[in-house]
Amino acid sequence: MQSQQKPHVVIIGGGFGGLWAARALAGSAVRVSLIDKVNHHLFQPLLYQVATAGLSMPDIAAPLRHILRNQANATVLLGEVSEIDHARRQVRCTDGNALDYDYLIVASGARHAYFGHDEWAAHAPGLKTLDDALVIRRQVLTAFERAEAEPDAARRAAWLNFVVIGGGPTGVELAGTLAEIARHTLRREFRRVDPATARVMLVEAGPRVLAALPAELSVKAEKQLQRLGVEVLTGRAVTTVDADGIALGEERIAARSVLWAAGVAASPLGRQLGAPLDKAGRVLVQDDLSLAGQPEIFVIGDLASKQQDGRPLPGVAPVAKQMGTHAARTILARLRGQPARPFRYSDVGSLATIGRMAAVADLGRIRLSGILAWWFWLFVHIFFLIGFRSRLIVLINWAWSYWTYQRHARIIVGQQPATPEDRSA
Amino acid sequence: MQSQQKPHVVIIGGGFGGLWAARALAGSAVRVSLIDKVNHHLFQPLLYQVATAGLSMPDIAAPLRHILRNQANATVLLGEVSEIDHARRQVRCTDGNALDYDYLIVASGARHAYFGHDEWAAHAPGLKTLDDALVIRRQVLTAFERAEAEPDAARRAAWLNFVVIGGGPTGVELAGTLAEIARHTLRREFRRVDPATARVMLVEAGPRVLAALPAELSVKAEKQLQRLGVEVLTGRAVTTVDADGIALGEERIAARSVLWAAGVAASPLGRQLGAPLDKAGRVLVQDDLSLAGQPEIFVIGDLASKQQDGRPLPGVAPVAKQMGTHAARTILARLRGQPARPFRYSDVGSLATIGRMAAVADLGRIRLSGILAWWFWLFVHIFFLIGFRSRLIVLINWAWSYWTYQRHARIIVGQQPATPEDRSA
Repeated sequence: MQSQQKPHVVIIGGGFGGLWAARALAGSAVRVSLIDKVNHHLFQPLLYQVATAGLSMPDIAAPLRHILRNQANATVLLGEVSEIDHARRQVRCTDGNALDYDYLIVASGARHAYFGHDEWAAHAPGLKTLDDALVIRRQVLTAFERAEAEPDAARRAAWLNFVVIGGGPTGVELAGTLAEIARHTLRREFRRVDPATARVMLVEAGPRVLAALPAELSVKAEKQLQRLGVEVLTGRAVTTVDADGIALGEERIAARSVLWAAGVAASPLGRQLGAPLDKAGRVLVQDDLSLAGQPEIFVIGDLASKQQDGRPLPGVAPVAKQMGTHAARTILARLRGQPARPFRYSDVGSLATIGRMAAVADLGRIRLSGILAWWFWLFVHIFFLIGFRSRLIVLINWAWSYWTYQRHARIIVGQQPATPEDRSA
Repeated sequence: MQSQQKPHVVIIGGGFGGLWAARALAGSAVRVSLIDKVNHHLFQPLLYQVATAGLSMPDIAAPLRHILRNQANATVLLGEVSEIDHARRQVRCTDGNALDYDYLIVASGARHAYFGHDEWAAHAPGLKTLDDALVIRRQVLTAFERAEAEPDAARRAAWLNFVVIGGGPTGVELAGTLAEIARHTLRREFRRVDPATARVMLVEAGPRVLAALPAELSVKAEKQLQRLGVEVLTGRAVTTVDADGIALGEERIAARSVLWAAGVAASPLGRQLGAPLDKAGRVLVQDDLSLAGQPEIFVIGDLASKQQDGRPLPGVAPVAKQMGTHAARTILARLRGQPARPFRYSDVGSLATIGRMAAVADLGRIRLSGILAWWFWLFVHIFFLIGFRSRLIVLINWAWSYWTYQRHARIIVGQQPATPEDRSA
């Protein structure tokens, strides 16, 4: 078969980096295999909306093979890569399948990480996948249910205390939305407790939230959070997380719901490439995103460590997309015998939403906050949502939520709701 | 507090029976407590659509406390009842909470059952809850993924064989929809296998599918199933279900995906009432749906065993709703010192959908099949969907699926996709 002669590009990971790389290879004389652990591409910027019951899973996720169905040279495989054998140019999966590659693009991203406190994971779930989002949704909604059923006042208060650890974009979004749920969405639905008495605390070890943005916008974000009802605790490092809550040094806060948004660690696949890593475990890439001495391997997205103008590129979707496209184009250039060009991120600005009508945006010369930033954020996110029907449905859901304060996806699934005893087990 | 003096009606179960009972008590001088294991009311007739990725969870489920938010005399509690102490008139939950009742309405329904073959449960999931639906969705979608990745032809075929056990409404709906997914939805999305080569088999031990309907409609349903691509195996009893497939007596069928739609068993709470049970474990109720010698306890819905005109009432939503309303009215009549009236089910007809544009309907004098029955089915189901926004969204989803053959909820969540080894473990 002639197609067997075409160079084989294997892409690990169907996030923004991997998917954009696959698309940039459409119509080219290469075979593309895209491997992912899950069957869907996830629009991660809206994942917190699934965690907080504002959107359903299919609103922000679409099957990878559906997205690539018309790209004849692309094969999508569900599988988990366990081994990258760069000497033999082979990728092996946990199900025993192996793929030989001519070019490899590693885009396996990052997971949330607890910085040496893995025992915190059981008490403070993080948010990276749809499964994570369903866990957080279950925990948050169940907490209000437990409060309603709890006769003891102190225990009841602990069910109504919510702590979000980490003041980056995810932490800010979660805290702002939790406050909205407590103050508006659940109003009048409980008979024994008043959800509006719930405390939502956002804990950040550094001096300000949204540290990647200009200081002026951090200040505005904090004010907007406080207006929504969030207690912002900056400069406070978490020292303990357990079944009863958290400790900030000497001070203990009793809380049944603790969410983790404080940090990520690079995918462990990076360690198998024989390339140097940075402190965070990310792979140091060359100017064209390939590895030193291994020009057939590219590392992109959250797994790549790349400086630009003396600063590391952030782990955000626009960087991953541009890297994916660049890696694909570099491969095609090499196949044509042309030289590789260095990657340069074209900065599209930074955006963070805080809650209902509250957001901040840093667009270089223009800085927005409040309602205008929120509308801009909404427009950008709906515009970039992948896929066919999602935009319309998401828009309808959003309009509905906006006018009614309701969140339609308040469905608890998964394990039976935890009893107090389960929780500490 | 004066409200403490009002009679307390405890309702176990927020399905059609329990929810309709609670609603019928709105505005009356009683306190109502509705307890359910899950936080939502589920529109069970469309559950198969969630299992087959056509609808998302919130399309067919809404939080019970949201539905009852404006009913001031109703309290919703998330909890699992472990004990009914009918001597002390108390209900106790697994979380240690206890509720004293003046009247008790038990509407805890049924689960799917394996008739003494509990070991089949691991290999043939049933469909009663949203969690069940996500398990089936994961299993079906993963089977096609595994087939795409499987190099061995015999194993590949086993991944593409789907067996549905039980020719009642749920089995017919599942089989018809699976055939549509294989033949239309997934077309052009796979590179190594052709999903249209998948076999969908519907196994029924009795002589015909949809045995509750007139024989003439069963024949039409079978023809419609065959037209959709389903192999209908009637008069064939399943003798084995294991990790490799099923056996029908001597004949073995290799299939990785086996779905169970063959039977249900009544909730175990029925055994705690000190009342006689029928063979299926359902509680024999008196004419007014209360228990003999315990006029303060009512049993309704799938848990109740009630004859009418010499035939047992079927376990369908209209029966449960009418029973719920009747039990509530009987309680109110008693409180006013009026005599209880006997319950009589007002038959609204029977409907079963088969797949795209295929259904059968028995409306007494009128019997429909094919396209007309399908439109009737669609209209009735969307009309009866509980809740505010769902109808519009479901209608949009359906219109979209109809024109494009796409099913938007093709998202696999839950445990990592099973490898062949996991499956037999």
